Amino acid sequence: MEVIVNVAMSADGKLATPEREQIRISGPEDFDRVDAIRAEVDAVAVGVGTVLADDPSLTVDDPDRIDERRACGESAQPTRVVVDSRLRTPTDAQVLDDAADTVVFASAAAPADRIAAFEQRGATVIVRGDSRVDLPAAVDALGDRGVDAMLIEGGGELLASVFATGLADRVSTFVGPLLLGGREAPTLADGPGFDRPFPELALDGIDRLDDGVVLYWSVLKT
Amino acid sequence: MEVIVNVAMSADGKLATPEREQIRISGPEDFDRVDAIRAEVDAVAVGVGTVLADDPSLTVDDPDRIDERRACGESAQPTRVVVDSRLRTPTDAQVLDDAADTVVFASAAAPADRIAAFEQRGATVIVRGDSRVDLPAAVDALGDRGVDAMLIEGGGELLASVFATGLADRVSTFVGPLLLGGREAPTLADGPGFDRPFPELALDGIDRLDDGVVLYWSVLKT
Ligand SMILES: NC(=O)c1ccc[n+]([C@@H]2O[C@H](COP(=O)([O-])OP(=O)(O)OC[C@H]3O[C@@H](n4cnc5c(N)ncnc54)[C@H](OP(=O)(O)O)[C@@H]3O)[C@@H](O)[C@H]2O)c1
Ligand SMILES: NC(=O)c1ccc[n+]([C@@H]2O[C@H](COP(=O)([O-])OP(=O)(O)OC[C@H]3O[C@@H](n4cnc5c(N)ncnc54)[C@H](OP(=O)(O)O)[C@@H]3O)[C@@H](O)[C@H]2O)c1
Repeated sequence: MEVIVNVAMSADGKLATPEREQIRISGPEDFDRVDAIRAEVDAVAVGVGTVLADDPSLTVDDPDRIDERRACGESAQPTRVVVDSRLRTPTDAQVLDDAADTVVFASAAAPADRIAAFEQRGATVIVRGDSRVDLPAAVDALGDRGVDAMLIEGGGELLASVFATGLADRVSTFVGPLLLGGREAPTLADGPGFDRPFPELALDGIDRLDDGVVLYWSVLKT
Repeated sequence: MEVIVNVAMSADGKLATPEREQIRISGPEDFDRVDAIRAEVDAVAVGVGTVLADDPSLTVDDPDRIDERRACGESAQPTRVVVDSRLRTPTDAQVLDDAADTVVFASAAAPADRIAAFEQRGATVIVRGDSRVDLPAAVDALGDRGVDAMLIEGGGELLASVFATGLADRVSTFVGPLLLGGREAPTLADGPGFDRPFPELALDGIDRLDDGVVLYWSVLKT
């Protein structure tokens, strides 16, 4: 499974405000770049924190890209994935609408009636892990369902686990021309901090886009 | 007064670990770049958090740069500045040694005996603000002492105030090829978060250096 991480951050490394309010960090060129990545992968994932904060749709926008997927015999949209141990995602969240298939990673702590409600909404619930989602096991199960490439868009708590478990292969960050500030604001990798050695990267490229810059990194596997 | 901010951050925007342990983020090319900025300014400042965590010397290393300063009739070293409301800097900190002049910004909350001890060590104490250093006022007083250009090297708590008070003119960030992680790790702008509107930047340039990249920003004045 190829795992790509992409986020937009302020110049001080923040994904949103300390109140977890989404702020426009990038612009149309970067939105288009992200749309292209979504169109190329089989699944697009976020953590439940992002669903609660932003209610994202996680779908490909560009009709040409959707047509191209169809022409290649793929589903019109990549599968949406929410990492949500206890199924806190509201059942009226956009990520559970009919625009695309949705898989929810849950843990054994998820109440059975929530699992039933999500399945009722058409979502597939994959249970791995006791109190929290066991990410490598859940990603394996997604691979068994034919997902070969996945984009993970955040937030910082989910991504900290993604990096800590060595799942990520590549990371791209749009760095935008503003400061969001705040010691409690989400970043690319929150969580409790990593065990040594720290995840190491290699810089693959740089692109000026909108009024900021995209940094392309590979995650070195040790 | 021209105020330049420079830090080294990991690709996830961290200045150090959550335990505030200093980690090598950049390399010799970036150290040399920072040495050159130090040689060009009249003062180099950090917050007391950085003194307590790193015990930095804040001096210019390169003998040629020191000679050049002397040849221009300047002091061999820029003045070191510590922002330290209650004078928590240990009196045996490197920043109080004889290698350069030192100014400490304190507030009215600083104990008189600490002020005396710092002056004994040869430092100049500038008191501005009640419980915390009033940064604009202290920077003004530094300007009155002939400082026209100042480099502020961190950490994130001090820099949050530097940006919030509109003091910074330019920001350069070395972004290094690793992830430090941790929701408690220091970043370029910590503090409680900014009031709207958020500080806006313009990207002036990009340099690949060591195994990372330096982003050069101007702070837009509104
Ligand atoms: N700028 C951008 O590109 C961007 C992108 C995405 C998000 N964001 C911002 O990021 C913020 C949300 O980020 P966040 O960090 O609060 O939330 P998040 O990473 O989206 O979700 C974190 C949650 O995922 C669940 N989870 C389940 N298993 C996990 C595991 N193994 N490891 C880690 N988490 C696991 C946890 O809740 P349970 O234990 O209850 O399951 C955890 O609280 C919002 O402000 C949003 O706007 C910005
Ligand atoms: N990678 C890099 O380039 C780099 C550079 C520098 C530091 N660092 C790292 O940053 C960490 C230290 O950063 P930090 O954020 O903890 O500390 P800091 O910003 O160096 O110092 C913060 C302290 O400054 C004092 N202060 C006085 N007046 C202030 C004002 N008006 N606004 C804000 N602060 C004021 C406060 O203490 P009082 O109220 O007691 O005065 C405050 O706690 C360390 O881990 C260090 O390694 C990294």
